[in-house]
Amino acid sequence: MTDDRDPIREAHHQWLRHGWDDAADGMAMVTSVVRVHQLLMERVEAVLRPLDLSFARYEVLRLLSFSQSGAMPMTRLGSLLQVHPTSVTSAVDRLVRQGHVERLRREQDRRVVLASLTASGREVVEAATEGLNARVFARPGIPGADVTALTDLLGELRAAAGDHVADPSGTRDDALQSR
Amino acid sequence: MTDDRDPIREAHHQWLRHGWDDAADGMAMVTSVVRVHQLLMERVEAVLRPLDLSFARYEVLRLLSFSQSGAMPMTRLGSLLQVHPTSVTSAVDRLVRQGHVERLRREQDRRVVLASLTASGREVVEAATEGLNARVFARPGIPGADVTALTDLLGELRAAAGDHVADPSGTRDDALQSR
Repeated sequence: MTDDRDPIREAHHQWLRHGWDDAADGMAMVTSVVRVHQLLMERVEAVLRPLDLSFARYEVLRLLSFSQSGAMPMTRLGSLLQVHPTSVTSAVDRLVRQGHVERLRREQDRRVVLASLTASGREVVEAATEGLNARVFARPGIPGADVTALTDLLGELRAAAGDHVADPSGTRDDALQSR
Repeated sequence: MTDDRDPIREAHHQWLRHGWDDAADGMAMVTSVVRVHQLLMERVEAVLRPLDLSFARYEVLRLLSFSQSGAMPMTRLGSLLQVHPTSVTSAVDRLVRQGHVERLRREQDRRVVLASLTASGREVVEAATEGLNARVFARPGIPGADVTALTDLLGELRAAAGDHVADPSGTRDDALQSR
């Protein structure tokens, strides 16, 4: 074993050697997801760190910026981000301390707590999106057709885990659909 | 927007609406990787948590268990795991405290620090692998051909980021190859 060999392929080989044939391909896939996640997060964090944002906090700001009023109930944020309510709370707490978000209550129903984008929040989410688009999203490193194929296969996995996922080729078609 | 819609597709739609066409597919791919990583780690952690292991510490134990002597220089562990030396140090520190690993020095060259599996380390890595194989790796949730296609596409991304990756279909063939 030398360092110019593929560690995931080496592991796959070991799995087969141990007779774990039915698990070897799944192990290689899961380990590949972990590695690619790590590589992509390094690139994402290189853009977001100078703005003092994590990807989780960026996603909160992004969702708020897409809503008409720039505000959204905390519970709705959690369901759209598909994370535990405590994660949303801690992300929003930090964003409030940073001055990017403020908490509001509806006059009509004071039980509903909204997270609302501030002017500084709008500014930072625009800068972050511009940076991510230019330095990560528009340059994924593989051809466009492979990007779409990868998203579709990942969509299959998400659907199998219970996520609501649009039809596989939907990512290419939604500009044309009003659905 | 209702909660039974696909949040990633909604985001893709927003990207196109804002005219970020060249970045929309990449955004959907990156966000899908993040979501699938989260879903897979939930399943992995359900197996590893009762054994008091993280996936990073499991990977250290797994690599050591595959080496002939059950021991490996710390530097080599880092290069195989493709993580920063400080991450390896902190994982091994924790494994030492748990009694699964001990640190050794070569008699011939006392500068080389080895991480070495203990009997309890061997036991826990076998239990962890058995659990992961049965509950995650052998049941990825999508058909076998898609698992392989996904691993190959992720391999393209890894290669584009500078990882040494075996030829794309290698994960299926290495039982037949001595390379």
